[in-house]
Amino acid sequence: MINIAGYSQTKFGELWEKSLFELVKESIDNLLISTKTEISEIDAIYFGNMLGGVTENNLHAGSKIAEIYGVNIPVFRVESACASGGMAFNLGHTYLEANPNKKIIVVGAEKMTDVMPEEITEGLSSAASGAEQEAGLTFPGLYALMARTYLDKYNYDKKNLACVAVKNHLHGFLNPYAQFRKKITEEEVLKSPMIADPLGVLDCSPITDGASALLLTNDKKFIKNKKIVNIFSSEIATDSISLMNRKRIDGIDATKIAAEKAYKKAKLKPEDIQIAEVHDCFTIAELFAMEDLGFYKKGTAGKRLLDYETLLDNKGKLIVNTSGGLKSAGHPVGATGIKQIGEIYMQLIGNAENRQVKNLKYGLAHNVGGSGGTAVVSILGI
Amino acid sequence: MINIAGYSQTKFGELWEKSLFELVKESIDNLLISTKTEISEIDAIYFGNMLGGVTENNLHAGSKIAEIYGVNIPVFRVESACASGGMAFNLGHTYLEANPNKKIIVVGAEKMTDVMPEEITEGLSSAASGAEQEAGLTFPGLYALMARTYLDKYNYDKKNLACVAVKNHLHGFLNPYAQFRKKITEEEVLKSPMIADPLGVLDCSPITDGASALLLTNDKKFIKNKKIVNIFSSEIATDSISLMNRKRIDGIDATKIAAEKAYKKAKLKPEDIQIAEVHDCFTIAELFAMEDLGFYKKGTAGKRLLDYETLLDNKGKLIVNTSGGLKSAGHPVGATGIKQIGEIYMQLIGNAENRQVKNLKYGLAHNVGGSGGTAVVSILGI
Repeated sequence: MINIAGYSQTKFGELWEKSLFELVKESIDNLLISTKTEISEIDAIYFGNMLGGVTENNLHAGSKIAEIYGVNIPVFRVESACASGGMAFNLGHTYLEANPNKKIIVVGAEKMTDVMPEEITEGLSSAASGAEQEAGLTFPGLYALMARTYLDKYNYDKKNLACVAVKNHLHGFLNPYAQFRKKITEEEVLKSPMIADPLGVLDCSPITDGASALLLTNDKKFIKNKKIVNIFSSEIATDSISLMNRKRIDGIDATKIAAEKAYKKAKLKPEDIQIAEVHDCFTIAELFAMEDLGFYKKGTAGKRLLDYETLLDNKGKLIVNTSGGLKSAGHPVGATGIKQIGEIYMQLIGNAENRQVKNLKYGLAHNVGGSGGTAVVSILGI
Repeated sequence: MINIAGYSQTKFGELWEKSLFELVKESIDNLLISTKTEISEIDAIYFGNMLGGVTENNLHAGSKIAEIYGVNIPVFRVESACASGGMAFNLGHTYLEANPNKKIIVVGAEKMTDVMPEEITEGLSSAASGAEQEAGLTFPGLYALMARTYLDKYNYDKKNLACVAVKNHLHGFLNPYAQFRKKITEEEVLKSPMIADPLGVLDCSPITDGASALLLTNDKKFIKNKKIVNIFSSEIATDSISLMNRKRIDGIDATKIAAEKAYKKAKLKPEDIQIAEVHDCFTIAELFAMEDLGFYKKGTAGKRLLDYETLLDNKGKLIVNTSGGLKSAGHPVGATGIKQIGEIYMQLIGNAENRQVKNLKYGLAHNVGGSGGTAVVSILGI
């Protein structure tokens, strides 16, 4: 069995005083301390990062991480837009499937707030197709097209989106590492400045600096006396990045395909999952996730989420985005997929403090790249 | 056993009429045709690419490749500067170690000649450390520092470098896919315009467009009636990217460490290797490779290569860079590591046409990132 044996993250937010690699180092250093592990015990590192080359002229991160620690182990950098962290986790998991008695670090980081917003917007748009970029479609625009399609098809309006932002800010308020620790109301979301109809600024996740790191292992000796979680599955699906080439845009097929594979491999069903971190880059994305991950029937998420049944302490069967999600905890692109898994790990081992969900056995993390061109679904349990 | 069951590449050169993804498609299409395989039979794709984000604002390549073929399989993009191709190969190999009866494609591509040379120089320098970039050290400068150290230490001069360029151009002259199919003389190399002392322009590999693709499999049924090569090992080592933090700069320790692991896993010794593709981004780099890979004793490569003992038809025990190397075949960064393995594959199955080495059993491919921050060594055999 492959296990998660530790998690660490930096504060997510505008961290102007810290560089990309300082964030990487902080998250790895704290992971090593908390797991009582020396860097010399680590066999490989998988690093998720999207924009290092674009905003910092900083590629070849593998050797730069090796330099920080004076090691000669393999260090892989993987990029898959906002799914870079989930992809790094998946590759690390595969390495452990192939190699017994190993210990690896999966780390993700992104440095986004040091450059002009236009530069970040352009960098993020690199995850879209060339035609979409040329049409001036940035990610709020792409998700707005999908949101408008969904809301019109199922007779919903902006209120059915706003509840997601409100819930995730209630959760993020409880998370000391979250970027926005501020409760917001539905009215505030509905009145927030329009970015791309129907998405207001409070429907959108922010730009964020931050890093997160997991220790993965299949070393039985090493896990003695450690709080561990089992990885039951980690599955990936892709889809056409261009919306115009998708079969549908009232949801994300890549999520659906990855989830079906992940449930099958874990021998679990959506109704077994008690806690999930889903990719709410925009409020609409959490509605899609609830349906595409099999939690809700198609077209019903708009209605069901209005009741806040996935909010902590509301005694729902499934609690979603206790970290605050991308919306409130922040979205340092390469770190997000790893933070999601880290949150599930902390919940499953009972270390989630004032946002702890009780009696947990199974959790799921869901990471999306771009407008749905890549999805990673990982199922964990104890 | 994990096998290579096919190889394809585009022409390497200035391919202004083709985009990055057109090159990817061309190499994959031809690979599928030559191996009589449908894309629907492929389980995953690993893509090596360095500069897509920098020169084209083209990230999230995984979903863009999925879109070309209308598939939903995992597509990973990995970046490790000039070792991106080798790293993609290594990850694909690990996937097959973990998953029986699979078929995957490992593809690498780079589009470098469509932008101004300054932009490519800056993009490539992103593989160096921040301090080196700020000091104005681009890669010819970094390798020149290493070359000067080596030449002075072992009492060699520029002639000991020039012979590498001459040999690799003699090989590239025979390779229909090579960028420069032109024989050159030692005198021409020695008189070529100085780029960074002691490296003249003919000591340097060019900037290049191109793509290359391998089919890897562990599916026993699939390989029936196919020409296959066994992968004995693929190992990676990293090192500090900054020259000032290295233990030595008269060679590349990452190569040495990766090679030792690769020989051990393959249960072979350097003297077993009959053919090698080594990373000659600059002439000095081939001297380093010959020593660090264990073929020659430290400090002797300068002398031994003067005799052209690794030239095709010179009846040496080891022939090096029959493709023409990076120097003559070209260096489309993400494609290089895969082309090297492809050349060894073609040689081992006897399909190397007029550059065929006879009676081969074992070959080695050696791919380096940056000034030696990453090295990938893979050993193949039949």
